[in-house]
Amino acid sequence: MAIATVSTGETVVIQTDDAFGSQVHSEADLPSTVNKWPYVNPQTGPTLIEGARAGDTLRVEILSIEPARDYVVSAFIPGLGGLVPSDNTPMLSKDLDEKVFIYRLDEDGVHFSENIVLPYAPFLGTIATAPELEAVSTISPGDFGGNMDVPDIGPGALIRLPISVDGAFFFIGDAHAAQGDGELCGAACEMPARVRLRFELEPGQAIPLPEIETEQEVMVVGSARPLEDAVRRASSYLVELMVARYGFDSATAYQLLTHAGRLRVGNIVNPRYSVAARIAKAFLPPRRAGVARLGEVTSG
Amino acid sequence: MAIATVSTGETVVIQTDDAFGSQVHSEADLPSTVNKWPYVNPQTGPTLIEGARAGDTLRVEILSIEPARDYVVSAFIPGLGGLVPSDNTPMLSKDLDEKVFIYRLDEDGVHFSENIVLPYAPFLGTIATAPELEAVSTISPGDFGGNMDVPDIGPGALIRLPISVDGAFFFIGDAHAAQGDGELCGAACEMPARVRLRFELEPGQAIPLPEIETEQEVMVVGSARPLEDAVRRASSYLVELMVARYGFDSATAYQLLTHAGRLRVGNIVNPRYSVAARIAKAFLPPRRAGVARLGEVTSG
Amino acid sequence: MAIATVSTGETVVIQTDDAFGSQVHSEADLPSTVNKWPYVNPQTGPTLIEGARAGDTLRVEILSIEPARDYVVSAFIPGLGGLVPSDNTPMLSKDLDEKVFIYRLDEDGVHFSENIVLPYAPFLGTIATAPELEAVSTISPGDFGGNMDVPDIGPGALIRLPISVDGAFFFIGDAHAAQGDGELCGAACEMPARVRLRFELEPGQAIPLPEIETEQEVMVVGSARPLEDAVRRASSYLVELMVARYGFDSATAYQLLTHAGRLRVGNIVNPRYSVAARIAKAFLPPRRAGVARLGEVTSG
Amino acid sequence: MAIATVSTGETVVIQTDDAFGSQVHSEADLPSTVNKWPYVNPQTGPTLIEGARAGDTLRVEILSIEPARDYVVSAFIPGLGGLVPSDNTPMLSKDLDEKVFIYRLDEDGVHFSENIVLPYAPFLGTIATAPELEAVSTISPGDFGGNMDVPDIGPGALIRLPISVDGAFFFIGDAHAAQGDGELCGAACEMPARVRLRFELEPGQAIPLPEIETEQEVMVVGSARPLEDAVRRASSYLVELMVARYGFDSATAYQLLTHAGRLRVGNIVNPRYSVAARIAKAFLPPRRAGVARLGEVTSG
Repeated sequence: MAIATVSTGETVVIQTDDAFGSQVHSEADLPSTVNKWPYVNPQTGPTLIEGARAGDTLRVEILSIEPARDYVVSAFIPGLGGLVPSDNTPMLSKDLDEKVFIYRLDEDGVHFSENIVLPYAPFLGTIATAPELEAVSTISPGDFGGNMDVPDIGPGALIRLPISVDGAFFFIGDAHAAQGDGELCGAACEMPARVRLRFELEPGQAIPLPEIETEQEVMVVGSARPLEDAVRRASSYLVELMVARYGFDSATAYQLLTHAGRLRVGNIVNPRYSVAARIAKAFLPPRRAGVARLGEVTSG
Repeated sequence: MAIATVSTGETVVIQTDDAFGSQVHSEADLPSTVNKWPYVNPQTGPTLIEGARAGDTLRVEILSIEPARDYVVSAFIPGLGGLVPSDNTPMLSKDLDEKVFIYRLDEDGVHFSENIVLPYAPFLGTIATAPELEAVSTISPGDFGGNMDVPDIGPGALIRLPISVDGAFFFIGDAHAAQGDGELCGAACEMPARVRLRFELEPGQAIPLPEIETEQEVMVVGSARPLEDAVRRASSYLVELMVARYGFDSATAYQLLTHAGRLRVGNIVNPRYSVAARIAKAFLPPRRAGVARLGEVTSG
Repeated sequence: MAIATVSTGETVVIQTDDAFGSQVHSEADLPSTVNKWPYVNPQTGPTLIEGARAGDTLRVEILSIEPARDYVVSAFIPGLGGLVPSDNTPMLSKDLDEKVFIYRLDEDGVHFSENIVLPYAPFLGTIATAPELEAVSTISPGDFGGNMDVPDIGPGALIRLPISVDGAFFFIGDAHAAQGDGELCGAACEMPARVRLRFELEPGQAIPLPEIETEQEVMVVGSARPLEDAVRRASSYLVELMVARYGFDSATAYQLLTHAGRLRVGNIVNPRYSVAARIAKAFLPPRRAGVARLGEVTSG
Repeated sequence: MAIATVSTGETVVIQTDDAFGSQVHSEADLPSTVNKWPYVNPQTGPTLIEGARAGDTLRVEILSIEPARDYVVSAFIPGLGGLVPSDNTPMLSKDLDEKVFIYRLDEDGVHFSENIVLPYAPFLGTIATAPELEAVSTISPGDFGGNMDVPDIGPGALIRLPISVDGAFFFIGDAHAAQGDGELCGAACEMPARVRLRFELEPGQAIPLPEIETEQEVMVVGSARPLEDAVRRASSYLVELMVARYGFDSATAYQLLTHAGRLRVGNIVNPRYSVAARIAKAFLPPRRAGVARLGEVTSG
């Protein structure tokens, strides 16, 4: 039931739809009407990764994300959002009215208003492998990745995902042209996109949570509620990672994150909130032998 | 009962003790022994601000923060920390062992280890006016400021604090030479310091929560538990502020924060967690007449 | 792929395994060894309910729950429990040691110790229909029911479950001989059981969350994290239910729950916590015509 | 600055005002107008307890609570309530309209409506000694007691409170004629009252959290946010109490609470939520020598 099979080392282009399934084109297209909830946030996949085995780690280099349209869409959607009553945090008082926002997108960025242009800073809101046990809605993030909405998952980043099922069953979607921390109202600058990727495998390297590596930083994404538990999940595993790969003892790693770690709140609107705990590579010693870093792996 | 009175416009130097009351000098000085809990995090103040009236806003420019010692102190303290059982989140399993960390501080920064030097990035963990009603422990942040542990409260920043009592009863302390987001273990690079400040008043400008303004950003600090409520408090008031001072309507401000807002987690270890919601000034129109900006006020 | 088809009105006996798949018989059988996580909490089903259509409500009368063994099993399991570090709330400090507890069960109850016998108060930890969209682990509760661990789901209770898929695809398991509120360590008095049930349908009566009705009370189960959101979900929908079925206006229902509502914490250990919000029938007026109550429906 | 001094063993009658300072008498008296926030929930006290020393425990027997008025008051108050946007959980959407509810109170109970009479089940929403360090608003509960809103604090109950300051500085208020779990809207059936009490001291018996003892149960009240942390605080200390006073080992106590403990949610509306963790005395062995139980202490 995969839509394609990809070899490691190949450069691949994947087209993604927007989170509304391209059903919202104007302010008149209310998501609660044009979408059939909860069948939203369509993904492209699953893609089989040749040679991937359960227990391996999938490395995904994001080479580029180009918009497939000249506008982006956002919306206030009933039951969704961090600053309004929502399905998980219901209130007896009324929600905000549903409302669609259409913004022009061009080489200057997202034209938020006559005076405000937001830089084009694209990333994949959703990137995942198949989880081991459950079939999870594309709205939800989890240990397999999913709808994390972490803005660091953009061009130039290397994403590591756990592989729980032979073939990996990789999928992506939910590209955003721009997003603030937390994705407060629940819908960022949503767009369909053309995404160039390259895959590698780290055989026999099981990881528990998604990792992100950029030129500057190493990150772990933890998803949980309440938000402090997302911080705990990401940070605790980042401590473990620093011990396993960089030779720290646990107390020293906890100290270093206390003094130099960073946290980025991906979303506070999805069924689990996502936080990226991160440390600058400048503070990390060379990685231990046998564990590949960004750019080190070459395909076979 | 104030220790001093200060006029607006004057440049003032305030000496602050470290969070351990300068009782920890070596790894043998365990905080649970040398400190008498909960009498920790000593503050310098209260300082009366001449002319300050309840309902005004206090503007504090932080001009410089210099260390008063050539080392900083951190520690694992029983019952404290975001990644261990704590007083607020107790567990039946054992905590980590208590442990003190002493790091040399010089012009290069904090000498975390032989190979790792952390840049000197000082700020005030605690800055406050007197709350209206309660007498609050210096360990706790609140709407009056307090132990927020937000790293943006450093040199070059302008802090706005609500004034709830005539005279303001300003106090500061808990200077940190460096701190990661969340202050994970509960003790940053703690140091005594010499802090240069300048005060101004915004008469009749009541604000509900502390604000931070830097050259680049406008921020609001919300303190609450769970952590998502700190995000909600900071972000909701930032929306209100954008409406009141920059002429946005509420829906547009909510949209702009969704696409371009940032969040910084100050602490996840204090009685209330603190989050700074922020927006780049580049995305804000000129401020409305009658409301002073950074650098605009001159003392009388 | 259902294991059986059942007609409404029939009395049915279903055998359920215990949460450990009957692999734990002595203190030497550590769950982390004898079970293959996360493949635990096996369920019996799915059972097709004849005539059930998506959008109907399934009524399940629990007639009896009998133990299929003369002992029950509990355990401290790494990563599980409300008072220890867990997968969702990880800590850097050590968890409690894994440990199995076997208690004799006879007509007097659960022989907890020489001096303490706990009354036999059986219920189904897990009861569910198939969710619409996801395939959810049997460890998790949700709007479809699932692993709620609410002790009121015992003999004499009428459970209402949303039907999201034609046929309902009903399943049960995880019988407990006794359980405290919150199921603190994550494993109650676990036993295999013989469960007698009778099903009815309420055609065209869609409900959003599971309901429980006993001789004394009407309840709604909300599952969410943090725990206050489980309270909000259960209570908000109970207000709606009181409006729709008993003729209250929303403000009066909110008042009545404020003064006379009760809350029971089912679990604080599963991927979502579960709370049953409840109101005594003594405070409710007769139900509105056309909406069936306990015992009113007779099968066709 | 105490209003009275009381000897142990004496029976004392204390008059308490209602939470609105008796300013709300009709539906026209909106709390936001007639009260000056946050100066609400007035308490009677502090009362000095003769001979009380910091480090002792104060035992308060509640002998009776009689209404001082023939009606009770509740209200929807802006910024307050568990099912609406609130000061701690703000939303951009509108709150419910402010609204006052007046209910007649007589020997039959609280006349909620023509058809619904709620039994008179009085208790003290607020009961406290002075905290060691802070001056805390009467709206907030804490380790010193305070605004816990736990309905078990009624006639027949024995309350144990930590004494942090010589003299204890005891105070009470906020009597409720009836309240549901969670006090959902934030205002129960509020009434002024005449409260008969008797005090004893347990010298040198420091306790960390308030305890409640009834004929049937032993309870600990934990106050924290999020709500699961209130459960953790109450339950963890109840485990410790079972170890210290009843001779359990920690693992057995954790098991017993898992299978037979109960939780009651006092409030989900105050600055800290309160939960009473409880165990039936029927499951407890005789208390260890030297530790007084309900009714055992006689004054000197």
